[in-house]
Amino acid sequence: MADRKRLPVSEAVVRRLPAYYRHLREMEATGEHRTSSRELSERMGLTASQIRQDLNCFGGFGQQGYGYHVIELKRRIGEILGLTRAYHTIIIGAGNIGRAVANYPSFRREGFEIRALFDEAPALIGAHVQGLPVQPADSLEAWIAAHAVDIAVLAVPAENARAMFARLIRGGVRAVWNFTPVDLDAPAEVVVQNVHLSDSLYTLTFRMRESIGGSLGGQ
Amino acid sequence: MADRKRLPVSEAVVRRLPAYYRHLREMEATGEHRTSSRELSERMGLTASQIRQDLNCFGGFGQQGYGYHVIELKRRIGEILGLTRAYHTIIIGAGNIGRAVANYPSFRREGFEIRALFDEAPALIGAHVQGLPVQPADSLEAWIAAHAVDIAVLAVPAENARAMFARLIRGGVRAVWNFTPVDLDAPAEVVVQNVHLSDSLYTLTFRMRESIGGSLGGQ
Repeated sequence: MADRKRLPVSEAVVRRLPAYYRHLREMEATGEHRTSSRELSERMGLTASQIRQDLNCFGGFGQQGYGYHVIELKRRIGEILGLTRAYHTIIIGAGNIGRAVANYPSFRREGFEIRALFDEAPALIGAHVQGLPVQPADSLEAWIAAHAVDIAVLAVPAENARAMFARLIRGGVRAVWNFTPVDLDAPAEVVVQNVHLSDSLYTLTFRMRESIGGSLGGQ
Repeated sequence: MADRKRLPVSEAVVRRLPAYYRHLREMEATGEHRTSSRELSERMGLTASQIRQDLNCFGGFGQQGYGYHVIELKRRIGEILGLTRAYHTIIIGAGNIGRAVANYPSFRREGFEIRALFDEAPALIGAHVQGLPVQPADSLEAWIAAHAVDIAVLAVPAENARAMFARLIRGGVRAVWNFTPVDLDAPAEVVVQNVHLSDSLYTLTFRMRESIGGSLGGQ
């Protein structure tokens, strides 16, 4: 385990890997067992040579004259992405976002097991989500101390984000999927992945202004 | 309006603009009226010179020896992002994600007005979200024909994504915020912004493997 090699993968390739996985999963679901860099390039809006180059990073899955085995390629990329194991996941904040994550069917399918949900709102405590009772946030530390937690989903209001993040880190959580609009200051050993929904929405409005111009962009 | 200039802004700067806006909004909320490239760089994890360069793209808001007016800078970036107007928004799919978007308080504050929600599930139709009744998806075309729609939020199951997207486009919708895991094939005049939650989650697990290595990454 100690000699596990770091993958020499560029940031740009890393950004594309989940999309490869997603497209291959979709192909698998529709019974496509074989694909080509050309087909992938059409689906993904990349050039075929970019795709060959990306996939070569992981040791040439393609076969001359055949292309790529969908299932084999998906399995290999899933390994690289760490999707061949289960992740014990807790959700902090059982509002709409927290429940959306808990109920997202494909996450369970990919090994993300929701083990507990916490909230501060008395109205939510004791409600059941995916068969699990929402627990009071007060009990977070005790629960974390007694259970293995791989990933915490942070879905609390912005004003509570930093304090709750600090409690998670003190409790030993090392990976946080952050749905709050707050950029968290994480120690080096903690991995934080942000889903900044407002950033995505503002990028949409920026592109609308660019694309539709005067007809929509008037101030 | 016809002579509105295209902004000569690189993709990388565009990607950062929403984050600038978000940090400035946070500063405004906590009563910070003045900031500097150094403070912004600490908050955002960029170099101060990168920040000066980014902000110079929009015509030098900084003043020697003073720094930046938070409110003025936020206002200007909000203009560039198209956040100085209202957007009539409809939500297709009133499940957890659709409701999370409808209930997200900061979207309303920024001018995104939810005008209608649609769903195919009989159990959801007629339920109220933010005071609006969920309407049957059958009535989508008639509703779109009778109302101005700026943005459609697509939050339906993956298997319905392409068909529903096609209906929106045929109905004249020109901007789609896509929460389905499907990459949609959009005509040139349509702006699609994706929130691929699974891509974000898989990036988290990839980084966990990289960061924590053998202790978590065993297969």
